[in-house]
Amino acid sequence: MKILIIGAAGMIGRKLAERIAKDGVLNGTAVESAGLVDIVQPSPPAGAAFKVSCQAADISDRGVAARLVAGRPDVVFHLAAIVSGEAEQDFDKGYAINLDATRYLFEAIRQEHLRSAGGYKPRVVFASSIAVYGAPFPDSIGDEFFLTPLTSYGTQKAIGELLLADYSRRGFFDGIGIRLPTICVRPGRPNLAASGFFSNIIREPLAGRPAVLPVSEEVRHTHASPRAAIGFLLHAARLDTEKLGARRNLSMPGISVTVGEQIEALRKVAGEAAVARIRHEPDETIQRIVAGWPQRIDARRARELGFTAESSFEDIIRVHIEDELAGKIA
Amino acid sequence: MKILIIGAAGMIGRKLAERIAKDGVLNGTAVESAGLVDIVQPSPPAGAAFKVSCQAADISDRGVAARLVAGRPDVVFHLAAIVSGEAEQDFDKGYAINLDATRYLFEAIRQEHLRSAGGYKPRVVFASSIAVYGAPFPDSIGDEFFLTPLTSYGTQKAIGELLLADYSRRGFFDGIGIRLPTICVRPGRPNLAASGFFSNIIREPLAGRPAVLPVSEEVRHTHASPRAAIGFLLHAARLDTEKLGARRNLSMPGISVTVGEQIEALRKVAGEAAVARIRHEPDETIQRIVAGWPQRIDARRARELGFTAESSFEDIIRVHIEDELAGKIA
Repeated sequence: MKILIIGAAGMIGRKLAERIAKDGVLNGTAVESAGLVDIVQPSPPAGAAFKVSCQAADISDRGVAARLVAGRPDVVFHLAAIVSGEAEQDFDKGYAINLDATRYLFEAIRQEHLRSAGGYKPRVVFASSIAVYGAPFPDSIGDEFFLTPLTSYGTQKAIGELLLADYSRRGFFDGIGIRLPTICVRPGRPNLAASGFFSNIIREPLAGRPAVLPVSEEVRHTHASPRAAIGFLLHAARLDTEKLGARRNLSMPGISVTVGEQIEALRKVAGEAAVARIRHEPDETIQRIVAGWPQRIDARRARELGFTAESSFEDIIRVHIEDELAGKIA
Repeated sequence: MKILIIGAAGMIGRKLAERIAKDGVLNGTAVESAGLVDIVQPSPPAGAAFKVSCQAADISDRGVAARLVAGRPDVVFHLAAIVSGEAEQDFDKGYAINLDATRYLFEAIRQEHLRSAGGYKPRVVFASSIAVYGAPFPDSIGDEFFLTPLTSYGTQKAIGELLLADYSRRGFFDGIGIRLPTICVRPGRPNLAASGFFSNIIREPLAGRPAVLPVSEEVRHTHASPRAAIGFLLHAARLDTEKLGARRNLSMPGISVTVGEQIEALRKVAGEAAVARIRHEPDETIQRIVAGWPQRIDARRARELGFTAESSFEDIIRVHIEDELAGKIA
């Protein structure tokens, strides 16, 4: 079992590599090697019993993808992306990485497939996003709701999904696209992403630090933990894709809660002192951006196919405490 | 008013140019010039009172689009495409024309927009297709049904729609994508397209010739005449796009009828003798292909926005007799 992870230096890529190193197997088969690629050199995961090669590469450079897949990895995780805010700010860069590089990768796999006379047909797991949806939304977004992204990032992800479905239908590879909900609690320092507060208001108080809440407590959103996201990727790598038919892109499950419910969960898990560290400081810009985001994702198909996420926001908080804080809260 | 028609040698492009030549105006403004482009040199429409330039050009050649839009046309009709069957057979050619060339065109317009410091922002009318939909379908396909194309052609059109929406949202041009239903009655000789019989069973008997029906009379499909299709394009060119919001791609209306109802309409318009020229000759391959096509398109949004099509299949037959047969039937 040879694995390739593109975007291996990001939060999800790093955790995925760590998990695979710990497991030593993927889809019940021993891992023989893992290639980790990102625009900056990824770090090898601790304790891998298999060969790990780490390289920095710009996948928007047309020749790079062919080199990455020349070793014919059995499973390719494509997680690399220019994030929403940057893709909006730098139109060309967003299209170069999120669209062109994705197509170069798919095309390089196709060329390898053709060279192997059809014998090479890897599983491709593509990290898409609920940013493929654009307001106005129904109360809950069903599996057949259409994609009308309101950002260039969402547009590029939606195009990636279409390409993945077509390349799979044609038999060049065996692809599955998974739309990740907002990942919460994100580890690390607060960042400037508009969605950052969803994590900040949990992570910072748990660490004894103050956090700012820029929206009202009525705001509703769908979340899954980083651990659940890794679970989605691994399940996507082993799923019997016959069950997907031609519809190979799926919204992942998550728990839909209001910010008020997030805070209530924090109170239950960490007490009043933690909640007291949250300062309400309304920010109109962030409120406007967040108003355009999906509130509830139905994700029935994904659940039926065995994708699982936390069933309460308290569980999401507990996952953070276990995985990032070694069980200790401030 | 300067117009550019890409794909001007095709059936729709030719009729569009003829109609604009006849009208002399577009959106209430006198037409000053029209550029007609296709992979083969288009013919100039008869009687145009404005300047017409016709050129053969391969739009999948990266430099071509910049030359085409250098004159800053006010309205660009992008109709050029590799059709469904050929795009399925020749994967690279389909992607080169239907995806790459579309993106080169949009990008060339963006560059012209940037060079003009934002002053140049043409209307772009993109001919999409109901091939963006893939089975299984609901009984009637609503405006919010998702796009899961089952052909490379449909995939490429869906990607064109996403690009058009994003370039429009960013303000580079003012785009609208219209999904054409099956155009019936297509003039000319019977062709090998799987959908050809929908037109053959009307056009051939009206001309006194035999026609083959390869599917059962229960098969249901949605149709609009070539005249209605030109009406869609002209309405799309003048529509107030503020009304579209961010959702710039629309399924066009049509009349949903069974093949049996088509034949009944032929009987009413042209009598028993015409109907007797249809020979039932079931073809399993065509039956299977057609089973994957949409039966009914709701098109409520398009109707509300003023797009109109025929309200009976008899009208569609009468349009053919008027526009193609000078009012005479065999």
